[in-house]
Amino acid sequence: MPHSTTLRAFFNEVWNQGDVEACDHYLAPQYSIWSDPGDPWDGQTLSIEGFKARMTQSRTPFPKQAFEIVALVEAGSDLMVSWTWTGTHLGDIPGFPATGRAHSMKGMTHYVFEDGLIRGHWQAVDRLGLVNQLQAAKIS
Amino acid sequence: MPHSTTLRAFFNEVWNQGDVEACDHYLAPQYSIWSDPGDPWDGQTLSIEGFKARMTQSRTPFPKQAFEIVALVEAGSDLMVSWTWTGTHLGDIPGFPATGRAHSMKGMTHYVFEDGLIRGHWQAVDRLGLVNQLQAAKIS
Repeated sequence: MPHSTTLRAFFNEVWNQGDVEACDHYLAPQYSIWSDPGDPWDGQTLSIEGFKARMTQSRTPFPKQAFEIVALVEAGSDLMVSWTWTGTHLGDIPGFPATGRAHSMKGMTHYVFEDGLIRGHWQAVDRLGLVNQLQAAKIS
Repeated sequence: MPHSTTLRAFFNEVWNQGDVEACDHYLAPQYSIWSDPGDPWDGQTLSIEGFKARMTQSRTPFPKQAFEIVALVEAGSDLMVSWTWTGTHLGDIPGFPATGRAHSMKGMTHYVFEDGLIRGHWQAVDRLGLVNQLQAAKIS
């Protein structure tokens, strides 16, 4: 199975449908977040249970969310992907109470595979754009 | 020549050494910035002269700067790359007078090639991290 097939299933089941337990099918026993500026787990290596906790926590403000893949390049154990995320702000974030408004954010991720499983990632995300949207929604 | 060789030369000569005219060797006649949130030229298609103007303007606050490639994945006409940028803040930015301090920023770019030349990009950058560094340098 091409890594791109695995990744698309991981995005759909885990992140878009919110099926936390499906992590078991996609993640290596040790998952490293090599670089993800602004992510609370930046620099950490997580067990699958640790990853599930990260996922649950980070989806809480946006329980309804979806990643759409824009482009994907795969070679050997490396897969880089660009995506657009949309999420509905239904849970409170410190400083930003829930508004019910939909927001979007663009980003790119470099995934590394090992034995057909996702071993970790290096990620860049337009967090400034999301903060600006949250602030505009708060004022208006 | 692999596109990765072209890209590395483009990064080194154009962005790192600041040789604006070297754009002639690397860029397609029309260069599209399909997506680059926060970049003033986001969404535009530029001539090579237009790209040189963008480059000159965006390098002015950081005339001493360097992109270091972290990882690169190439397939067909697509190349995705992750990088770390470092720059010395030597020119004024609105709201942020020059401090002489060095800053860094991480990002990823998806380049598309056409006839061996770079046709455009889709980019995600940790601008929030850079803004936080600029603000900390201003206060201290």
